[in-house]
Amino acid sequence: MPTIKAAILGFGTVGEGIYRILNEKKQEIKRQTGYTIDVTTILVNDIAKERMPTPGVQVTNNIREVFEQPQLDVIFEAIIGEEPAYTYLSEAISKGYDVITANKAMFAAHGPALLQQAEVCGIEIGFEATTAGGVPIIQTVKNLLAGDRIKRIQGILNGTSNFILTQMRQEGLSFKAALKEAQALGYAEADPTDDVSGKDAFRKLMILSKLAFGKQPVWETIDIQGIAQLTHEDIIEANRGKLRYRHIAEIQIDENGNLSGSIGPVLIGANHPFYGIDGVDNSIILDTEYLGALTLTGPGAGMYPTGSAMINDLIQIVNTRKRELISS
Amino acid sequence: MPTIKAAILGFGTVGEGIYRILNEKKQEIKRQTGYTIDVTTILVNDIAKERMPTPGVQVTNNIREVFEQPQLDVIFEAIIGEEPAYTYLSEAISKGYDVITANKAMFAAHGPALLQQAEVCGIEIGFEATTAGGVPIIQTVKNLLAGDRIKRIQGILNGTSNFILTQMRQEGLSFKAALKEAQALGYAEADPTDDVSGKDAFRKLMILSKLAFGKQPVWETIDIQGIAQLTHEDIIEANRGKLRYRHIAEIQIDENGNLSGSIGPVLIGANHPFYGIDGVDNSIILDTEYLGALTLTGPGAGMYPTGSAMINDLIQIVNTRKRELISS
Repeated sequence: MPTIKAAILGFGTVGEGIYRILNEKKQEIKRQTGYTIDVTTILVNDIAKERMPTPGVQVTNNIREVFEQPQLDVIFEAIIGEEPAYTYLSEAISKGYDVITANKAMFAAHGPALLQQAEVCGIEIGFEATTAGGVPIIQTVKNLLAGDRIKRIQGILNGTSNFILTQMRQEGLSFKAALKEAQALGYAEADPTDDVSGKDAFRKLMILSKLAFGKQPVWETIDIQGIAQLTHEDIIEANRGKLRYRHIAEIQIDENGNLSGSIGPVLIGANHPFYGIDGVDNSIILDTEYLGALTLTGPGAGMYPTGSAMINDLIQIVNTRKRELISS
Repeated sequence: MPTIKAAILGFGTVGEGIYRILNEKKQEIKRQTGYTIDVTTILVNDIAKERMPTPGVQVTNNIREVFEQPQLDVIFEAIIGEEPAYTYLSEAISKGYDVITANKAMFAAHGPALLQQAEVCGIEIGFEATTAGGVPIIQTVKNLLAGDRIKRIQGILNGTSNFILTQMRQEGLSFKAALKEAQALGYAEADPTDDVSGKDAFRKLMILSKLAFGKQPVWETIDIQGIAQLTHEDIIEANRGKLRYRHIAEIQIDENGNLSGSIGPVLIGANHPFYGIDGVDNSIILDTEYLGALTLTGPGAGMYPTGSAMINDLIQIVNTRKRELISS
């Protein structure tokens, strides 16, 4: 049975999730693809740090040792921040490795360049996990684009913000208290600035824009508002009128191909598809020419949803490569 | 530029939708697949009936003339009822044509046999349009199954029933009056029995069961209830308690691989994802092992959503075949 050799860059929650699922689903993946997936190398920041056992895997803090692995096929990237992730993936593509990333900050900024580089080199990039966690929005948009046209995308793209707004409404908490709870439950980072400022949602919107419309707007033209300015009183007052605040990222294309978008809290009524989206869920509405409005809702984050999205990317890539091989 | 020759069996709303979209999207499909799609033959019931002009296309009421077309590649099937559709598609597969169907009654009953026949013959079957109209549930389940496992499926799978329940609640109509409105708006058939008895939802559930679990339950073990027994008073009484009736089709698999399911009206509260699904929309919740719960919502029927789903099937099939060709 042929084997696919994989490396994992970054071994935080997401990297560990990939490793776990790859092991738990070994038989299933073999059945689905005909291949055994072997993780040969894991790149970590601090080699001395205690972590889950990974028998037979080389654990290194040196990217050169990853690239020097013989017969490496695919790289899972789960590093945080633009660099060194972009440099690593760009080198990986030039060396002929397929890549699968969960890194939204990196992919929002450098996705267009990486996609172009990948096309030239005949490399596949999986980026389902960069946007809306376990919701298969990337795959759905790709499929839709084959026979349809997307006119507008609206999304609840940051689970932390949505959780905070939900807690403020349901439990009557202040923004600060709700944020503290999100952090206690592991939903928000120690530094939650990117989540509550709207920056995280903005990045995901830029990734969707490139995919759905073939381009991104000039970043500075998009008004980005977070949720931090919403008071407990705002929320309660809205709720009295049966309205709810949702943090919505939105982008649309006009007939001339011009993009416009915005990110911020929006007051919506009970007939809006986002009215019932509570907690850490993400939800996305795609307005299309033929299909009408399609809504996808699911978990916005988490070790297993994110890891699972990356494994699905892997299987798609393996099946593409396999078809090429079988017929060659 | 290579050409794909297609036939359309059945030229009612759905068949006409396919023809329209194939013409409107000719350039786009060529760009996406590299192929020009030409409809060469249309099979109709009554050759004398007035219909939209289809220049250059052979219109016939004789299936033999369809199968005698030289170099036919793919057959779109949009006939109503199990026969003669099943016999036609079975012959099409044995002759080596890929098939794309929107026929849920036929595919619920004969899908398992056709899928097996297609596997033996190396043929692709597209059946996205059989279930939940424009909601890409078939593709989503296929993708999910690659790296995940589905435990339960719940769906609002009949748009007509959902529209009637919505009208009864929002407008205070009786079942009969709401049904009449659905018919006036073209949502319900002249004979709406299958819609309001739950039979239509049952068929779609069986198609999903085969896809998600690899098998269907024994049909007679599933309790099928429709919405006709719900009175205006039931709906208003529920609404007073902030509850809503939804017609839900549900199937689940236990650890031993046993299937159980039911179809009927269910009283749900505001926290249920189906609470806000009004009108002719369909919605499906997939409970999975890794991803958690994923909800898809969109138009359940209509010429363009259904036609668009079939064109997406076509593009998937063409791309699969193309990869085989390119590498061979």
